[in-house]
Amino acid sequence: MTISDVAGVTVGHCTLAQGAIQTGVTVIRPHGGDVYRDKVPAAACVINGFGKSVGLVQLDELGVLETPIALTNTFGVGTVANAQIRAAIAANPRIGREEPSVNPLVFECNDGYLNDMQALAIDEAHYASALDACSAHFARGAVGAGRGMSCFELKGGIGSASRIARIGEQSFTTGALVLANFGKLHQLVIEGEAVGRRLQASTHATPEQGSIIMLIATDAPLDSRQLRRVAMRAAAGLARTGSVYGHGSGDIALAFTTAYTARHDADFIALPPLINDARLDPLFQAAAESVEHAILDALHSAETVAGRDGHRRLSLNDALKARS
Amino acid sequence: MTISDVAGVTVGHCTLAQGAIQTGVTVIRPHGGDVYRDKVPAAACVINGFGKSVGLVQLDELGVLETPIALTNTFGVGTVANAQIRAAIAANPRIGREEPSVNPLVFECNDGYLNDMQALAIDEAHYASALDACSAHFARGAVGAGRGMSCFELKGGIGSASRIARIGEQSFTTGALVLANFGKLHQLVIEGEAVGRRLQASTHATPEQGSIIMLIATDAPLDSRQLRRVAMRAAAGLARTGSVYGHGSGDIALAFTTAYTARHDADFIALPPLINDARLDPLFQAAAESVEHAILDALHSAETVAGRDGHRRLSLNDALKARS
Amino acid sequence: MTISDVAGVTVGHCTLAQGAIQTGVTVIRPHGGDVYRDKVPAAACVINGFGKSVGLVQLDELGVLETPIALTNTFGVGTVANAQIRAAIAANPRIGREEPSVNPLVFECNDGYLNDMQALAIDEAHYASALDACSAHFARGAVGAGRGMSCFELKGGIGSASRIARIGEQSFTTGALVLANFGKLHQLVIEGEAVGRRLQASTHATPEQGSIIMLIATDAPLDSRQLRRVAMRAAAGLARTGSVYGHGSGDIALAFTTAYTARHDADFIALPPLINDARLDPLFQAAAESVEHAILDALHSAETVAGRDGHRRLSLNDALKARS
Amino acid sequence: MTISDVAGVTVGHCTLAQGAIQTGVTVIRPHGGDVYRDKVPAAACVINGFGKSVGLVQLDELGVLETPIALTNTFGVGTVANAQIRAAIAANPRIGREEPSVNPLVFECNDGYLNDMQALAIDEAHYASALDACSAHFARGAVGAGRGMSCFELKGGIGSASRIARIGEQSFTTGALVLANFGKLHQLVIEGEAVGRRLQASTHATPEQGSIIMLIATDAPLDSRQLRRVAMRAAAGLARTGSVYGHGSGDIALAFTTAYTARHDADFIALPPLINDARLDPLFQAAAESVEHAILDALHSAETVAGRDGHRRLSLNDALKARS
Repeated sequence: MTISDVAGVTVGHCTLAQGAIQTGVTVIRPHGGDVYRDKVPAAACVINGFGKSVGLVQLDELGVLETPIALTNTFGVGTVANAQIRAAIAANPRIGREEPSVNPLVFECNDGYLNDMQALAIDEAHYASALDACSAHFARGAVGAGRGMSCFELKGGIGSASRIARIGEQSFTTGALVLANFGKLHQLVIEGEAVGRRLQASTHATPEQGSIIMLIATDAPLDSRQLRRVAMRAAAGLARTGSVYGHGSGDIALAFTTAYTARHDADFIALPPLINDARLDPLFQAAAESVEHAILDALHSAETVAGRDGHRRLSLNDALKARS
Repeated sequence: MTISDVAGVTVGHCTLAQGAIQTGVTVIRPHGGDVYRDKVPAAACVINGFGKSVGLVQLDELGVLETPIALTNTFGVGTVANAQIRAAIAANPRIGREEPSVNPLVFECNDGYLNDMQALAIDEAHYASALDACSAHFARGAVGAGRGMSCFELKGGIGSASRIARIGEQSFTTGALVLANFGKLHQLVIEGEAVGRRLQASTHATPEQGSIIMLIATDAPLDSRQLRRVAMRAAAGLARTGSVYGHGSGDIALAFTTAYTARHDADFIALPPLINDARLDPLFQAAAESVEHAILDALHSAETVAGRDGHRRLSLNDALKARS
Repeated sequence: MTISDVAGVTVGHCTLAQGAIQTGVTVIRPHGGDVYRDKVPAAACVINGFGKSVGLVQLDELGVLETPIALTNTFGVGTVANAQIRAAIAANPRIGREEPSVNPLVFECNDGYLNDMQALAIDEAHYASALDACSAHFARGAVGAGRGMSCFELKGGIGSASRIARIGEQSFTTGALVLANFGKLHQLVIEGEAVGRRLQASTHATPEQGSIIMLIATDAPLDSRQLRRVAMRAAAGLARTGSVYGHGSGDIALAFTTAYTARHDADFIALPPLINDARLDPLFQAAAESVEHAILDALHSAETVAGRDGHRRLSLNDALKARS
Repeated sequence: MTISDVAGVTVGHCTLAQGAIQTGVTVIRPHGGDVYRDKVPAAACVINGFGKSVGLVQLDELGVLETPIALTNTFGVGTVANAQIRAAIAANPRIGREEPSVNPLVFECNDGYLNDMQALAIDEAHYASALDACSAHFARGAVGAGRGMSCFELKGGIGSASRIARIGEQSFTTGALVLANFGKLHQLVIEGEAVGRRLQASTHATPEQGSIIMLIATDAPLDSRQLRRVAMRAAAGLARTGSVYGHGSGDIALAFTTAYTARHDADFIALPPLINDARLDPLFQAAAESVEHAILDALHSAETVAGRDGHRRLSLNDALKARS
């Protein structure tokens, strides 16, 4: 069960894993077409804004995506944004001339514990490669943007999960994909059990420098205001794993719908009938659960990784084995 | 351990409990003086805005409280706001004449399951009575504004808890007081255990019409921007009890500090040195835990109450006994 | 040309004008039906939040009005909110019982220079009276909530204006109604001319304690996100008259559409095709101009009024006459 | 009178002006030190969010700048952000390793009418060059990031102005620097006179694709919440020149103070006594006027420029001459 259970959503990775370079790019395509021409209703929710993601100002104003969503490390954002601009121009040569500019959308976490971020190792070709690789079948764990990420001082990375919500007679699919890179070990809670405290007696004084990006896709017909409400429920899923949204953690959620698109050059945008807000509770539950389980999926999917300066992150599985 | 562990904070109730009228007013005084003249740095965070609280527009702009905080039922807000205005004028007869008006701050939850809200039973004297009753020692459970509230389809109401946070060499106290009136039984989680599912096999289709108000006091020196960050951590504490911030639940948090005040008529406001944001994680943890445990305290403190039209809410204790 | 050029919008006043009591209530009905059952898409924009209006938290979350819009003085808000609750219950006896509560929407300005606000002279019957009086033909100037208001140290109050915007082949009507109660005389600009400086040589040191409420109605099909964008353009219209959004002025704009409603109990909400954001500039221009001219209309429509303690506000017309 | 009247503020340009490449970079340094180590209290206000600026998410959360402010064209943002990261690492080699990452702050406007944005001509050295050039004496008009910008269909670019505000016994300096690239000719208003309508009989149907970035510096002691209030007053100054914040115009204001800094590694941040909000009106007036006059300064300072594909923008001076 992953975010690609929402029909049309695909995910691709480009992974860099050599010595001190442990990083990458992950791309999520909301549909198979040109997102600039068929914009995707979406909204973001900044739970804790210690983050350097780009594209949120315009998203907040206009309520649509106009590029695929890219994930990478903190210092790769500018380069990936450039790559998104170039890809949009290649497909739409009037951008920035007769047509308006394009709004790149890049989210990031700081993978500096394992990865030598100062090398600025991401280049534009890595975005193109991840975009080309997009598929409904995709790897999770220490891959793509998740390659160098840490979560609860264990190996983190990419995780995904999905849920079905029934509203009246209809069923809607909601899927989450996270880039999980947050938390101190002693905080970790799995399905209500304080696993972190079991794995670690004492707590470190070092502050968190993590972050988590939580992407939620749904096929339910919602507008951007409602999608912001859905995105906010990521905060509940995240809290269930033990997070209190640490100061240094850029915790950002984004929700989008595949139920319709907004044509770039239309005078009017036709929408399907939208779900009444009063009926949204099953979707909120599905969003929170998908995010919680996507985080756990990242922990379970990731392998142990060694990176710069002898730094090493045990996978949850290896940590549990070592303990037992 | 309650919110009054933060020195100077006091709480008072006025409880109405007769037949179909099961409601009341609770007042929280941030300090013993005149809050209009010595304004209290504060900030609110709207987690889910299905709510009718008043005073948040100006709080958001100016970052200070200028009345005590009042809690009541949804249809009592206007009357309690009037009572706050009259109390402020009585103490400061130039208000609304030579001096600006005053900003009443009233939060509410919908206690309509037990209480006949349509009776609009709250009058201004009830606010005065709760204000007079303010003390560091105060009852919790089915009292004051909590009298008619429901939580996880059990008896809810007023709960409180506090924590100590160490930052560098110093200790700060953070306390929470909640008006808990949210959730479906099957969602209830206590310290990681899915107690709600144990108490109830099947889930109801009726949507939530609850709400929770979460007040956080601290003696840590923070400005209103930082207090908003603290208030946001209430979302984590709330999620730990099983909530996903239901559509119909007005989930609002407010944090204030007792470390300093802003003199109404000063030209300049002197502040103590503020904690660097990078050191705030222990306070965030304390805020989340205080809110979680204040909710559990409400459930544990409340007694079973019968109200309008034969409606009845079992206390958690009675529900657990009935089950065993 | 007034806000009622937007078909279906009506306005009513209840005016109190006796000695020291110079105040009132104004009601704007967005359509002729029951706003609780047929909710009206809307959004507000807080330009300067020194204000005590109620209802904005839920409006921001859900994007709909569910009562008529009421205007009154700062200390009348609680009572008018109570009146709105009682009117909604009378029409929908299940409110607060089987159905959710209702969100009163009351805006205010401080008319304390002319009116004895401490008398709390507004009672619930005044709301009912203003609601009953609603009509497409309505008075402007020193009437209703505008009775005691001051604007640029002249007599302010209720003003209204409208504009037609052409988008492609279609025409849409946008109307504004303001409750104007802001500004210092030296700031006043009329159609680019610094009239205020002509009327007054020196500037007073007393700070502004005013406010302005700017309501914008349109028949253009927009969602609440877009209506928030329209509401923001009120800031441009307001600035054209000389305002810099003074500290003590609660400057709040709200925009709503009459193009469709959201049925309270529907599972899905059907919307007409919405205007593409890229086509909105003519509406933005119409909104800014309507607000600017509604303010000027308030100044031109108001008569000279005497109120409490010998306070008196000259109308603009009388001030210009006195000067010439 | 420019933004550098606020002591310590300096500005530098790097200008590219060859054939179809008419663009550049402008850097504003808030003080002469290392902004990462001595962070600058600041806040931004998004008036219309059709924009691709980076750094605002973290600024909104933490209320401080940690790099100089950079301005460039829309497609140069990623590259300039990379340059800011590299400059911060060079000065602080622990960034992204033992220390947190750094938050680049880059604002942009679309100069695509004159400049071939698709060439992505900005490289990292241009940022370094502009940074090196920072001085209290700096050129305005068609220089730096302003090289290719258009304003009211005339030549726009960099403009600056300042004002003194008296609060009680003290005087504070407030300066603005704008990157002006917005508006249709028929809208232009100069000091209340509709100059644009005089220069142009009929209005074009083409929508605006502009933007304006408005930076406000002050030496007044304010916190980030208050600076956000100051930034909002840019909307008034902008409206005075004829703008209604067009759909396609990213209108963003940022205000910062030079009165104190926040040490990166301090446990506590000492602040000077802050101005009481109730005394802020003179600063609000100064901010609005500085922005209005900075825009007019850009129009008056700019020369006529020819760019890509035979496109040409007349300076205001040349347009007025041609007309007379």
